[in-house]
Amino acid sequence: MPSYTANTRDMQFVLHEVLKVSEAGIPGYEEMERDFTEAVLDAAAKVSSEVLAPLNAVGDSEGCVLENGVVHTPKGFKAAFEAMKEGGWTALDCDPDFGGQGMPYVLNCAVGEMFVSANMAFNMYQGLTHGAYSAIHAHGTAEQKAKYLPKMVSCDWTGTMNLTEPHCGTDLGMMRTKAEPQDDGSYKITGQKIFISAGDHDMAENIIHLVLAKAPGGGEGTKGISLFIVPKFLVNDDGSLGARNAVSVGKIEEKMGIHGNSTCVMNYDGATGWLLGDLHKGMRAMFTMMNEARLGVGLQGYAVAEAAYQNAVIYAKDRLQGRAVTGIANPTGPADPLIVHPDIRRSLMDQKSFLEGARAFTFWGAHLIDRAHKAGDAEAEGLISLMTPVIKGFLTDKGFETAVLAQQVYGGHGYIEEWGMSQFARDARITMIYEGANGVQALDLVGRKLAQDGGKHVMAFFEMIKAECKAHDGDERMKPFTDALKAASKQLQAAGMFFMQNGMKNPNAALSGSYDFMHLMGHVCLGLMWTRMAQAAYAALDGGATDKAFYEGKIATGRYYMARQLPACAMHLARIESGADPVMSLAAEQF
Amino acid sequence: MPSYTANTRDMQFVLHEVLKVSEAGIPGYEEMERDFTEAVLDAAAKVSSEVLAPLNAVGDSEGCVLENGVVHTPKGFKAAFEAMKEGGWTALDCDPDFGGQGMPYVLNCAVGEMFVSANMAFNMYQGLTHGAYSAIHAHGTAEQKAKYLPKMVSCDWTGTMNLTEPHCGTDLGMMRTKAEPQDDGSYKITGQKIFISAGDHDMAENIIHLVLAKAPGGGEGTKGISLFIVPKFLVNDDGSLGARNAVSVGKIEEKMGIHGNSTCVMNYDGATGWLLGDLHKGMRAMFTMMNEARLGVGLQGYAVAEAAYQNAVIYAKDRLQGRAVTGIANPTGPADPLIVHPDIRRSLMDQKSFLEGARAFTFWGAHLIDRAHKAGDAEAEGLISLMTPVIKGFLTDKGFETAVLAQQVYGGHGYIEEWGMSQFARDARITMIYEGANGVQALDLVGRKLAQDGGKHVMAFFEMIKAECKAHDGDERMKPFTDALKAASKQLQAAGMFFMQNGMKNPNAALSGSYDFMHLMGHVCLGLMWTRMAQAAYAALDGGATDKAFYEGKIATGRYYMARQLPACAMHLARIESGADPVMSLAAEQF
Repeated sequence: MPSYTANTRDMQFVLHEVLKVSEAGIPGYEEMERDFTEAVLDAAAKVSSEVLAPLNAVGDSEGCVLENGVVHTPKGFKAAFEAMKEGGWTALDCDPDFGGQGMPYVLNCAVGEMFVSANMAFNMYQGLTHGAYSAIHAHGTAEQKAKYLPKMVSCDWTGTMNLTEPHCGTDLGMMRTKAEPQDDGSYKITGQKIFISAGDHDMAENIIHLVLAKAPGGGEGTKGISLFIVPKFLVNDDGSLGARNAVSVGKIEEKMGIHGNSTCVMNYDGATGWLLGDLHKGMRAMFTMMNEARLGVGLQGYAVAEAAYQNAVIYAKDRLQGRAVTGIANPTGPADPLIVHPDIRRSLMDQKSFLEGARAFTFWGAHLIDRAHKAGDAEAEGLISLMTPVIKGFLTDKGFETAVLAQQVYGGHGYIEEWGMSQFARDARITMIYEGANGVQALDLVGRKLAQDGGKHVMAFFEMIKAECKAHDGDERMKPFTDALKAASKQLQAAGMFFMQNGMKNPNAALSGSYDFMHLMGHVCLGLMWTRMAQAAYAALDGGATDKAFYEGKIATGRYYMARQLPACAMHLARIESGADPVMSLAAEQF
Repeated sequence: MPSYTANTRDMQFVLHEVLKVSEAGIPGYEEMERDFTEAVLDAAAKVSSEVLAPLNAVGDSEGCVLENGVVHTPKGFKAAFEAMKEGGWTALDCDPDFGGQGMPYVLNCAVGEMFVSANMAFNMYQGLTHGAYSAIHAHGTAEQKAKYLPKMVSCDWTGTMNLTEPHCGTDLGMMRTKAEPQDDGSYKITGQKIFISAGDHDMAENIIHLVLAKAPGGGEGTKGISLFIVPKFLVNDDGSLGARNAVSVGKIEEKMGIHGNSTCVMNYDGATGWLLGDLHKGMRAMFTMMNEARLGVGLQGYAVAEAAYQNAVIYAKDRLQGRAVTGIANPTGPADPLIVHPDIRRSLMDQKSFLEGARAFTFWGAHLIDRAHKAGDAEAEGLISLMTPVIKGFLTDKGFETAVLAQQVYGGHGYIEEWGMSQFARDARITMIYEGANGVQALDLVGRKLAQDGGKHVMAFFEMIKAECKAHDGDERMKPFTDALKAASKQLQAAGMFFMQNGMKNPNAALSGSYDFMHLMGHVCLGLMWTRMAQAAYAALDGGATDKAFYEGKIATGRYYMARQLPACAMHLARIESGADPVMSLAAEQF
């Protein structure tokens, strides 16, 4: 069975030496000193290794079961959920007015990375609740907040997000679920929603469903959509639970992975719901927290891969197979460990250099969200809006790829379920799909975000890279980083220029390259992160840091990324510059 | 549930217009006229769609079950196996002396592609038998051949290959299974083998296990290994079945995919076996048929992806979601089909351009094997030996990637098992691992095959590309193909040069780039195939072919490959040229 040990050392490095959170001066960051975050991270690491990770394989093999309308979670989940609640882990960055601890989102992300690495399917129950919490927090009336939030912060009640219907996922304008206004101000909700994560289960007293539906008078398409609060059990004014609402589980989907999470078909048969936010402004309300939700999925993508990587490293050190080509490395054993072989190294370095870059990128994104939300920083808001599809799309594609690489290290043992590596690959796969499939992320990036506010944010990003490179001018040690980053950034700019020159007369010319652009930009972002991390590592070494192995390893890993991952940028640019013709030239019948 | 319709049109194109099999003048190719192969392919296509494909999902969901020492295959498998036997599909390219039909291997591959696309796990029962048949055919005594082959050709008896043990897969020198010679000339085989595909099942009267084991006196490592025939039921001299041999199933492995095939732990407890081939020359005997076996796995890689692609195309045409960016394409519907969206096109073109290239590459490889085996062509033998790791490694990596792309087209529906797309991805995954994990293929290519016979074969390959490009000199229509192929070929040569210049003083410098070299060479091979296919398509159009849509689509798909896949070559070269330092610089503890 795989194990998991949180890499708190690297998290501390990113928080304090790269992002320098304790000097950020953001409201709510007052406590973010190194000792404090270390204590929080260590405690979360302990829960992750000891409580959550041991249940990961159980969740996968048992899955969730629907019996007589009731969903049962895998053995041990309920007790673990109680432990998470008692530890206060569900409330970390929530509003203190409703029982939360008010900590920065970036710290919640660090802790969340561990929980996802340890047990992604389990963590989704809380994750979805957090999303619903955020929606009610942002759009609810004072009464709604008072009624629902304290119980959701504590996870006594959990939450769900209901968007997809059988015939529409991305294109929500075709939605059929109806909301009929009642005399008492409530609505009757009728329709079927599918792919509802944590849709039902046995770990909470109540479940607060947030449901998109069409109320009369809103017009065609997405304009007619409103957002509703539909509790599983109606909540009385004194907070006690009332009657069972007319919402039921149609079935639990059989999925490729995340079996520990109940993905439900939900049937709303005239269920009672209350409008959340403004009438016919449901899409806007649902998407207020989209940056966070999508960042959360990007985090899942690399966090699952992190767990896979850790186990691949253990296996590569343990498994004796073959001899090093440069001479026997383990003379007392029958063979050398896998890790001596260059191609195994190549695989592990691909994994490690991506994962550490992804962590820095995600924490940086979370830090931008804190800047935007807590400090009202509009520049940060614009930047994270631009980065969100990249964090989601790039990190989940590469996260899945990384999990598959880790699985491959095990040879045949990676393919059998006993070793747990298959689960990491199967679990990671969903992150490329949900919360907007990655093709939709690419469309959002190229079709919307690039030109947002007159292209201001992407310009700011390029300026940021320029400034970063300039800051290291003449520093020979940093040259492998800044040279590669400059080249990659130029390629990204060339791609943007190609879109500008061709996209106006033929939108297909831009959109045919959207997916490659997302990856090209992802590499540039990780290149930027590695440049900053290398700088921080050199600073630590220059300052006489004692754990030299960590910092030297950091620099070597960064050099690997620059030398062996950034060359993908030229490939993506070439694909983009080939334009729409190769992509669009076949008639549908010719496929 | 997914469907499958064999692309016989494209197979005929490759056989007759690219490979020109009827003009090849190879013994055994006499019948290979267009009408004949069409009749065979059509019949196989019918079996594939009607008998095998409907059982694919059944096999996945039911799996194989071990009860009281007996393995039960999924419902319907036995009847389908009978149908395959009755149709003569198990005997297609087998020796007529033992009941085979003596057809070319290339035709067997075309038919095999269909069977794998329709139901990979099912087809493995026959595939493994074919491998064991080949080994006995090549190395057996006249008596052994007479005893076993007719029943194996008909698949009344099936076969297995037993190599892996719990502690060794790639490094077979550490093998522990023992063979003790008996007075009657037989051996007692004792040991445990794992990951034995089709290890036991209920579809055949007997199972002929080929087992690698160490007999006394052979020395250390792989030198001491011999190959043995160990039947499940001993076979009497009159061909009737005798006593049950001391071989049993320890368990069936739970796997990520190919659930329809029983992957067994096999326990040999003093089982009676007979030497196959020479004593202590077991590795050589086992690997005689390695080119075929590895080509067969490369074929699996793309064949599963072909089935996934076909369904993605159907879904992309059916599923209405969003509107085309260039204007409404389906005005009478609530939305446009997915296939109007450029990023969906990008994905489908990536799939299609790979798949058709992979088919041509594999058929070409099979044709080389026919040349080598049936016509004694040493050049072909050398070339296929060089190509084998590329066919296996590149086509399975890209095949899995393609199946994942196809799955992605379905959005959330791709992740739930109901639609069958998850199965394609899970099934394809094994092809990257078994029959030599792809890292081992890369090592074989760079560490062995490149330098084989003084580098003669790789030189011949480069000459072949040069000649191909030269043949189209001045042909403007072919320029997008030859220009791209020339550039890619130069990059491949530069990579080879880098290995020569650096590999001698530091083998790690070559092996750190082995995986990238395998992919770089794979792209060059597919670039060559596309150049040949484009040429054949132009020839057909010039000759007044009536199905212009096919040929024009072929050329457009080829142009896509050249424009949007070949740019990967420069990336692989850059990775290779970064050498060993980035890959090898960390100490094991720094991971």
